[in-house]
Amino acid sequence: MSTDTGETADGSDGDARERLIELAAQFYDQFERGDVPHMDVPTRTKTNIEYDPEQKVWVYGDRKSTRSANSVRGAQKLLKVIYSIDFLANQLEEDRSSTLRELYYLSESWDLDEAQFNSQDESNQLIEDLEIVSDVRREEFHMRPEESGAKVMGPLRLREQTNRGDREIHCQDDVGQGGYQIPNDPDTIDFLDNDADFVLCVETGGMRDRLVENGFDDEYNALVVHLGGQPARATRRLTKRLHDELDLPVTVFTDGDPWSYRIYGSVAYGSIKSAHLSKYLATPEAQFIGVQPEDIVEYDLPTDPLADSDVNALESELEDPRFQTDYWEEQIELQLDIDKKSEQQALASYGLDFVTDTYLPERLDEMGIL
Amino acid sequence: MSTDTGETADGSDGDARERLIELAAQFYDQFERGDVPHMDVPTRTKTNIEYDPEQKVWVYGDRKSTRSANSVRGAQKLLKVIYSIDFLANQLEEDRSSTLRELYYLSESWDLDEAQFNSQDESNQLIEDLEIVSDVRREEFHMRPEESGAKVMGPLRLREQTNRGDREIHCQDDVGQGGYQIPNDPDTIDFLDNDADFVLCVETGGMRDRLVENGFDDEYNALVVHLGGQPARATRRLTKRLHDELDLPVTVFTDGDPWSYRIYGSVAYGSIKSAHLSKYLATPEAQFIGVQPEDIVEYDLPTDPLADSDVNALESELEDPRFQTDYWEEQIELQLDIDKKSEQQALASYGLDFVTDTYLPERLDEMGIL
Repeated sequence: MSTDTGETADGSDGDARERLIELAAQFYDQFERGDVPHMDVPTRTKTNIEYDPEQKVWVYGDRKSTRSANSVRGAQKLLKVIYSIDFLANQLEEDRSSTLRELYYLSESWDLDEAQFNSQDESNQLIEDLEIVSDVRREEFHMRPEESGAKVMGPLRLREQTNRGDREIHCQDDVGQGGYQIPNDPDTIDFLDNDADFVLCVETGGMRDRLVENGFDDEYNALVVHLGGQPARATRRLTKRLHDELDLPVTVFTDGDPWSYRIYGSVAYGSIKSAHLSKYLATPEAQFIGVQPEDIVEYDLPTDPLADSDVNALESELEDPRFQTDYWEEQIELQLDIDKKSEQQALASYGLDFVTDTYLPERLDEMGIL
Repeated sequence: MSTDTGETADGSDGDARERLIELAAQFYDQFERGDVPHMDVPTRTKTNIEYDPEQKVWVYGDRKSTRSANSVRGAQKLLKVIYSIDFLANQLEEDRSSTLRELYYLSESWDLDEAQFNSQDESNQLIEDLEIVSDVRREEFHMRPEESGAKVMGPLRLREQTNRGDREIHCQDDVGQGGYQIPNDPDTIDFLDNDADFVLCVETGGMRDRLVENGFDDEYNALVVHLGGQPARATRRLTKRLHDELDLPVTVFTDGDPWSYRIYGSVAYGSIKSAHLSKYLATPEAQFIGVQPEDIVEYDLPTDPLADSDVNALESELEDPRFQTDYWEEQIELQLDIDKKSEQQALASYGLDFVTDTYLPERLDEMGIL
């Protein structure tokens, strides 16, 4: 199964194991050279992310933090790294998987008390460090996210490699009204064939169901991807693959408030906390379809006034490098000016079909997608 | 399609429409008799729920609140009821559906300003009133819940009536690793055939994925239903139907803390706020499989200390009529005594297979299900 990065599902597992073992080998080398063993990890703060024009996503800058065995605390950290690498290498060899939470509890069974995790924050952080240092995604270590992906409806036939064999599924003809459930690791999916013209990621379940009931996916050859609020990693990964491999434009349809713009931001640009994953998860070409502050004015939508927390969030978005474009500055300034926000389901004030008959076709036309 | 209550999907829609119109007709009768139009609704507080030994669930008692046109405010309420009934009757005639949120926004298009809703709380409450007074579930009015159901994996073949035709789906062979996505209205499902011995409802996604990875559903003929925290109405409805129509024992597997016992409570007994729905949604025969406070002791599981909010929640459960059984009093007292809580994934401290090889088989055996 091929992905945009040229990795294969099986191949990347092999890679992942190798890179983990390389990392452990590096500690041996340091010992051998008489160096104090250490591991450098990029500093993960807002001031240390920068735009990578080649990948078109935000990535970590050059600032590093060092985990070193020159203190008891640091030595213990590296001990935990070694035990975790050992566990993960075994897990990959046995073709099994686990969650972050299981790893934390599993450590209680390790023979050395000092290697056990004191909190789940500690084990989560360690796995993130390993992801960054080895440049391998957690899913390739077979660490499943706690939170599963959302669902897809549209003209796409795919093959999913499950642990009970392959399944061929058409995301309209072979699924119920609820659609196709995205697995935890969407790199187990092969795209077979499709009649899709674009991807429409939708924030709320209510709107997703409206589009499906109105047959929007069928009439407009849209792959409707339900985000369900802040999207899971699996959902973002699948969206990226739909864009990169099937060459489909990606649009994001959310409520018209600052929290929803962040949902768009996480689909398009990734997040600061996981900037190392941007190249796997982010779809920089994703376009925001709405609800735009401009739409609130133009379509005279029902609104609520901005709360103080909304105003603060909008102001902080103006400072966020991901939103420093003319488009977003204009929209955010407009929203602060009109002092209003609106939900995507507010489009129902013109009837249940307005969103599929009028709003989305008009926006898609403006955006050059239809 | 038949359900335990002897209703049919199509038939019940007809019924729903009739009952709504009867309700409107009742206002006409009141006018005609020279009475002030009014509508009685059971009072929805903890003191007005009581145990119905026949249905084995908690239902509203005899205390009523009256919505009457003897004040401007009351008259406006009834006006909104009439407009809502008109909308719902049309919706049912056209075989369409909508969400609570859409209803709220749609009211902006109504010709009479006084009939429009001022807040979504108001429209939500009105629909709940209509459910209670007409004894018809919201889903039968074709009001979709905002939140969709979770997913099922196990030896069950079903037919779902979608708005694009019927789909036959086997919940192991025809789905990906993510399972079968429960639709918003699970009464569109017909159960065709199954090899299931019991239903296992699971709180967390991480544990659900563990069971599926370990092939627990296959080895033990279990229908694994993912609850995903507090379960959606659709998930509870499907669980009840699996119990009533397929005669399968239902077990609920959650974390070992007071919030999770409430998840069990909502599957088994329903909630106070929706006691009128208990007979459709609750499965009083559902058994709690764990994590029990007893298990924390017996299996010496990794724990966290109880927070103050946990202690308060446990104490309030001791007062909750749904938990006033010897079993629950014993378990809750034990938990207050040991002052500890544990997560279901804590079973991983004995390895990734402990839950499927040891813990669940032992518990199912104790409970007489295996």
